[in-house]
Amino acid sequence: MKAFADGDRILLSHGGGGLLSRELVERLFLPRLANPALAALDDAGVVALGEQRLALTTDAFVVAPPFFPGGDIGRLAVAGTVNDLAAQGARPLGLTVAFILEEGYPLADLARVTDSLAACAREAGVSVVAGDTKVVPRGQADGIFVSAAGVGLIPAGRCPTGAGARPGDRVIVSGPLGEHGLAVMLGRQGIAFAGEIRSDVAPLNALVEAAYAACADPGAIHAMRDPTRGGLAAALNEIAAASGCAIAVDEAATPVSPEVRAACDVLGLDPLHLANEGKMVFVVAAETTDAVLAALRAHERGRLAAVIGRVTDGAPRVTVRTELGTERLLDVPVGEQLPRIC
Amino acid sequence: MKAFADGDRILLSHGGGGLLSRELVERLFLPRLANPALAALDDAGVVALGEQRLALTTDAFVVAPPFFPGGDIGRLAVAGTVNDLAAQGARPLGLTVAFILEEGYPLADLARVTDSLAACAREAGVSVVAGDTKVVPRGQADGIFVSAAGVGLIPAGRCPTGAGARPGDRVIVSGPLGEHGLAVMLGRQGIAFAGEIRSDVAPLNALVEAAYAACADPGAIHAMRDPTRGGLAAALNEIAAASGCAIAVDEAATPVSPEVRAACDVLGLDPLHLANEGKMVFVVAAETTDAVLAALRAHERGRLAAVIGRVTDGAPRVTVRTELGTERLLDVPVGEQLPRIC
Repeated sequence: MKAFADGDRILLSHGGGGLLSRELVERLFLPRLANPALAALDDAGVVALGEQRLALTTDAFVVAPPFFPGGDIGRLAVAGTVNDLAAQGARPLGLTVAFILEEGYPLADLARVTDSLAACAREAGVSVVAGDTKVVPRGQADGIFVSAAGVGLIPAGRCPTGAGARPGDRVIVSGPLGEHGLAVMLGRQGIAFAGEIRSDVAPLNALVEAAYAACADPGAIHAMRDPTRGGLAAALNEIAAASGCAIAVDEAATPVSPEVRAACDVLGLDPLHLANEGKMVFVVAAETTDAVLAALRAHERGRLAAVIGRVTDGAPRVTVRTELGTERLLDVPVGEQLPRIC
Repeated sequence: MKAFADGDRILLSHGGGGLLSRELVERLFLPRLANPALAALDDAGVVALGEQRLALTTDAFVVAPPFFPGGDIGRLAVAGTVNDLAAQGARPLGLTVAFILEEGYPLADLARVTDSLAACAREAGVSVVAGDTKVVPRGQADGIFVSAAGVGLIPAGRCPTGAGARPGDRVIVSGPLGEHGLAVMLGRQGIAFAGEIRSDVAPLNALVEAAYAACADPGAIHAMRDPTRGGLAAALNEIAAASGCAIAVDEAATPVSPEVRAACDVLGLDPLHLANEGKMVFVVAAETTDAVLAALRAHERGRLAAVIGRVTDGAPRVTVRTELGTERLLDVPVGEQLPRIC
């Protein structure tokens, strides 16, 4: 097991969802907490209960500012948790929420966050059944942090996993990319662009149910990921690595709104690296692609869904065929685009 | 629903487990998140899964210092979560852990916390199946915060709830009180007492199983609480309020170690208000008391278990018959003895 020297410190990038996040998980957490559910490195861990399978997930949310265009930390906590369960094919059974508050935090803001969190839970059809509140003295936390966890039931036959992609599979994304990351970034820095960019934060369990309803065999959905920190790039690289396949993305087919594209051009950002909080990536058997795509497009949260690429033989890596016809490697973000994006 | 004025702010006492914590839950959270599982205000929420019942719980841990005599924030996170499940009669199925780290936090300390957390999970026979790490810039959090959540299965026939106490029931505590709160307090302030006081932090699921094994009818355990923030006083007042009964405690029968008693005398503290992290309070049917007590005493974590009181008719309140023979009201702590005790 790796030992750490006195000088080794946590960097912002350790929380960024990119290369250093992965290193932290692989070198520090996995060897110590060794168990197969965690080692699968999926969005949720799976535990058996008799013949049934439960998915269990958690995320801490530290987004700054806690209220941003299109959402807030409460909606984010619920949607993020529901989406991690959905990415495992699970229907949510119950959620928990734990607040860490800084002394002096306005009660009206806490009420607003709680209202938003409750509304999102109703939208997803799930309840917050347990909670906790801790308060730390002024200056020892920044306003409000929210940790959420959830448990869900995985219906029989569903077995999506990051390791499930196979050559020939198609990659579908449920809608335009980059909105959450950009909305938080612009909201924080007070930059105004023509055409407001709002976070896409939304629960996707109903969308995932619609996708499954379109599959004669639920096993045809091989992998799902909600592309949060690190964006589509991180999600696809995780799938490629876990599956031992290459993934080829067609940039021209990848949905990005004109507003996000314009802002990315100005700021020098890649929309495929930006966080999403209301999009799902599906890796599906080729013959099921049309049915899943049609089902997604028929759902309000998937109207702009698109087939953006395919899984191929070859060393695990993700390539993008650009709109100019050239090919580039889509790497995991190495550094931190912006801390506290979710 | 209560609206909050601009000037209303979070106080340290809102996180203290006492009166203001309760107000926050009742006025802000419950009306907004309204659902029966949460409204029960037990240590874990209960959700149905077909014929089965799952318990779901979460806690955020912000203890300072994160390493204290007898334990650390990692052991605390696992034990606290397992004990909340155990207080609902549930056997743990899986845990999740989310870290919020301050930029610059030593990786060696994170590894030490993770080792301790993993060891405690092994001790409790449960796995950490999902996790998350967020990093905030220097100065925006104090070192390390850990949120944990857990799901457990409640075997048929078990139905402990804070509202379950009935006149005639006996109150059992599984061992001496006040050790965790005092160990953290002294550890933080660098006060040395003769005879080191160490936190009792430990998972109690095996102890609770032993208690159930001693009951012919699992329904004979009417209520359980792990008396953490706010100590025995908060736990018993919660049970009295939820059950609509009075509880009479016999101070002479209440186990407190000589070291804790001496330190409390010097510092002017009431051991019944101090946090515990390895003790369970049982409210049991009178005729089952001896069997449960014997089972607890036969277990390494319950050797000093004692019957400390009984449930009586009357308005919900907790009274203590002192060793001098007088009677005093055991109130919920109003203020905050010390922030960041767990």
